Amino acid sequence: MSQTPDSAVHAYIERHRAAFLDDLAAWLRIPSVSAQPERADDVRRSADWLAAALKETGFPVAEVWPTPGAPAVYAEWPSDDPDAPTVLVYGHHDVQPAAREDGWDSDPFEPVVRDGKLYARGAADDKGQVFFHTLGVRAHLDATGRTAPAVNLKLIVEGEEESGSPHFRALVEEHADRLAADVVIVSDTGMWSADTPTVCTGMRGLAECEIRLEGPYQDIHSGSFGGAVPNPATAVARLVAALHDDEGRVAIPGFYDGVVELTDRERELFAELPFDEERWLRTAKSHATHGETGYSTLERIWARPTAEVNGIGGGYQGAGSKTIIPSSALVKLSFRLVAGQDLGQVEKAVRAWAAHQVPAGIQLDIRFSPGTRPCLTPLDHPALRSVVRAMERAFQGPVRFTREGGSGPAADLQEVLGAPVLFLGISIPSDGWHAPNEKVELDLLLKGVETTAYLWSDLAENAGNAETAESGDAP
Amino acid sequence: MSQTPDSAVHAYIERHRAAFLDDLAAWLRIPSVSAQPERADDVRRSADWLAAALKETGFPVAEVWPTPGAPAVYAEWPSDDPDAPTVLVYGHHDVQPAAREDGWDSDPFEPVVRDGKLYARGAADDKGQVFFHTLGVRAHLDATGRTAPAVNLKLIVEGEEESGSPHFRALVEEHADRLAADVVIVSDTGMWSADTPTVCTGMRGLAECEIRLEGPYQDIHSGSFGGAVPNPATAVARLVAALHDDEGRVAIPGFYDGVVELTDRERELFAELPFDEERWLRTAKSHATHGETGYSTLERIWARPTAEVNGIGGGYQGAGSKTIIPSSALVKLSFRLVAGQDLGQVEKAVRAWAAHQVPAGIQLDIRFSPGTRPCLTPLDHPALRSVVRAMERAFQGPVRFTREGGSGPAADLQEVLGAPVLFLGISIPSDGWHAPNEKVELDLLLKGVETTAYLWSDLAENAGNAETAESGDAP
Repeated sequence: MSQTPDSAVHAYIERHRAAFLDDLAAWLRIPSVSAQPERADDVRRSADWLAAALKETGFPVAEVWPTPGAPAVYAEWPSDDPDAPTVLVYGHHDVQPAAREDGWDSDPFEPVVRDGKLYARGAADDKGQVFFHTLGVRAHLDATGRTAPAVNLKLIVEGEEESGSPHFRALVEEHADRLAADVVIVSDTGMWSADTPTVCTGMRGLAECEIRLEGPYQDIHSGSFGGAVPNPATAVARLVAALHDDEGRVAIPGFYDGVVELTDRERELFAELPFDEERWLRTAKSHATHGETGYSTLERIWARPTAEVNGIGGGYQGAGSKTIIPSSALVKLSFRLVAGQDLGQVEKAVRAWAAHQVPAGIQLDIRFSPGTRPCLTPLDHPALRSVVRAMERAFQGPVRFTREGGSGPAADLQEVLGAPVLFLGISIPSDGWHAPNEKVELDLLLKGVETTAYLWSDLAENAGNAETAESGDAP
Repeated sequence: MSQTPDSAVHAYIERHRAAFLDDLAAWLRIPSVSAQPERADDVRRSADWLAAALKETGFPVAEVWPTPGAPAVYAEWPSDDPDAPTVLVYGHHDVQPAAREDGWDSDPFEPVVRDGKLYARGAADDKGQVFFHTLGVRAHLDATGRTAPAVNLKLIVEGEEESGSPHFRALVEEHADRLAADVVIVSDTGMWSADTPTVCTGMRGLAECEIRLEGPYQDIHSGSFGGAVPNPATAVARLVAALHDDEGRVAIPGFYDGVVELTDRERELFAELPFDEERWLRTAKSHATHGETGYSTLERIWARPTAEVNGIGGGYQGAGSKTIIPSSALVKLSFRLVAGQDLGQVEKAVRAWAAHQVPAGIQLDIRFSPGTRPCLTPLDHPALRSVVRAMERAFQGPVRFTREGGSGPAADLQEVLGAPVLFLGISIPSDGWHAPNEKVELDLLLKGVETTAYLWSDLAENAGNAETAESGDAP
């Protein structure tokens, strides 16, 4: 099943590994947190750094593309073969917020290697996975003796993915001609485990909102007024409690409209994976599973839509007590969406539902962030087979299929560019995306390098198939 | 009904008013916030300041009494009449937390007079109401030509009332001999309004707890794990939502055990008060009333037990979004209790109930603060009639009866000292207890001074009645 690995690729990677890791560490030191306005300069600095690094890699074109928010980076390296297919690689250079006091063992923006793992915010999500493409294309050239890649290679690395990619779709629309590709490779997902390499075939979408409830004009005495006026903290709790029914289903009318249900074949493929609930719980850092009745854990995280509370707050949260009825309360909700769900319809359903959840005397304000669509790759797609072959060569073993519970703007690329979207990610669940002590395994990072060293030749050889393949929402 | 006011009392107050207000302002500048550990020195400084001020007033004994927490102040001024009854005045010198950014128009600890009102944290709750006793006893002496009060006057001013009086009962028990009194006067309550002077006949009790729910060991990615593990923020919301049924009743089994229901006579007296819902809502700074079905607003706040959320929190509450499942969430709850409810039984009921509210995989931790008992004064108590007469003389009009929705350690004094508890407070609902821009109306503050100037003589004359009166939980 797996092909012979290339000793030239191995040797090249070994020679350049130290410099590659030094460069990645330099990038990780830039705290490019797109959600925090005070980090805007750092996000810009991250884009400039990456564009310079891509030029250094050999990309003849490497540009910083401004947006109304944080900038993206675009690069291209044309093939010297006029018939070469065009591949667009997607990633992001912004990261989640992180602070030492959240539970990090070391500064999240001072990368350290411990026990073969590189710890830093963005190590896995997503700077590490963007960066393996730089050494990958050099290894591809060196091993094949080419002076330009076997494919027309393009990269688009956005700066607002962790903030819901508010300007990405417009950017893609604006530059659709330059971004045009036969296939899109998204490097912002994970694998099953270090021992079970997998290709992801879909990501969930994401709708996010902040709901703010206003009660009294200011905090009032809970003795003098308690029991006789509506309390916004109680109201926000009752709203959140009404999100789910007793079966763990989202209880918002219309929320499930259009959901593409799992096929029997997909449920079988999921069930074939070596899922160990105890081990998964350790990765999830959780004490128990919990969710929608009638679905397995993998089905719940990969193929079912959710409603989760990301944050809730109101009133006095400090030391001691303060006997008040708070004037306001808020909740930050995120909804993961699956193929068939429509962002606009979900927002409409949430708004209609929420309006009925609060008592008289409480003002409701809901703000949605721009959302992210769900997407799915058909299991029989020819370019997916190229990815599988390249991975099997690098990992020296069979590659299986998963989906990703997280979200990315892949569906926008698919829709605007009309190109099929494939996923190539080497992160594993224990890498701690969005959590303290995020890390990437160095061995896997270099397997990512190796996979891309093989992939461009394979895709070029199978371009005819890839170009005629179809892609859509349904499996 | 009302007796003739005393021109000597008026003249005395007028002469000393400016110095009295300057002294009060000096005390209000000390930020004696008992709930904040970093203010512990300020609370001690407040006790020292008060003891010195009471000595300056003329109290032969004025001592700072340490506790394991914040100190109390004790003072006594024996009567020169060997048959005089003994009165113990209760108040507190600690205040609620306050910060300019909570919505204060001026620094909460820099008192300012605007439009006849003195604005500062503690102006009404409770420093202003403690302090009117200093000028009051001087006016009493001056107007009666006495060199010592007509009653043996004692003051106990605690420093932890806003933190639930955790050490007050033990302090009272320790010093029960020195605190022994024929009657206790609590100056930590309010009146109906500036136009409708009232005497309070009862306070609600208070049980407070913080409930902390622990889920994942750390924040985890809501995409990778969302929908498949229990979310502590969702769990805390569902717990809070389960606090009340759809009729606004507290849904904790056993919570209402022993509650002394309102009598028809009390409901009539409440209904006779000039209650204006629109005006009350303005005072409550709220948009609507809300509460237990079958009870009026006054009944809800004065005579019904409640469950209120004082604070709720968990996960990301900052700007932008963070797609996590938070590792923990908390809620601070307070329960107002009425006569007949037992603190220990309420805590037991809450613990038993809460244990059933969280899903598997969520750890529950509940911490109760020491509580405050509810109390009630019988409407026909002879000492209550002395208070009514003194107030009617000061206010020149009829005095009505209310209760207080708030809580104080009056019931402990009643229980430990075996003395009836009466309430003398001149604050009004718009004074903003526990809220930004707390204030006291200067005219009412001086009516408090005047009332006590009359009260000690009246109580001394009617001591025989007071001494034989009974007091208990039930009206």
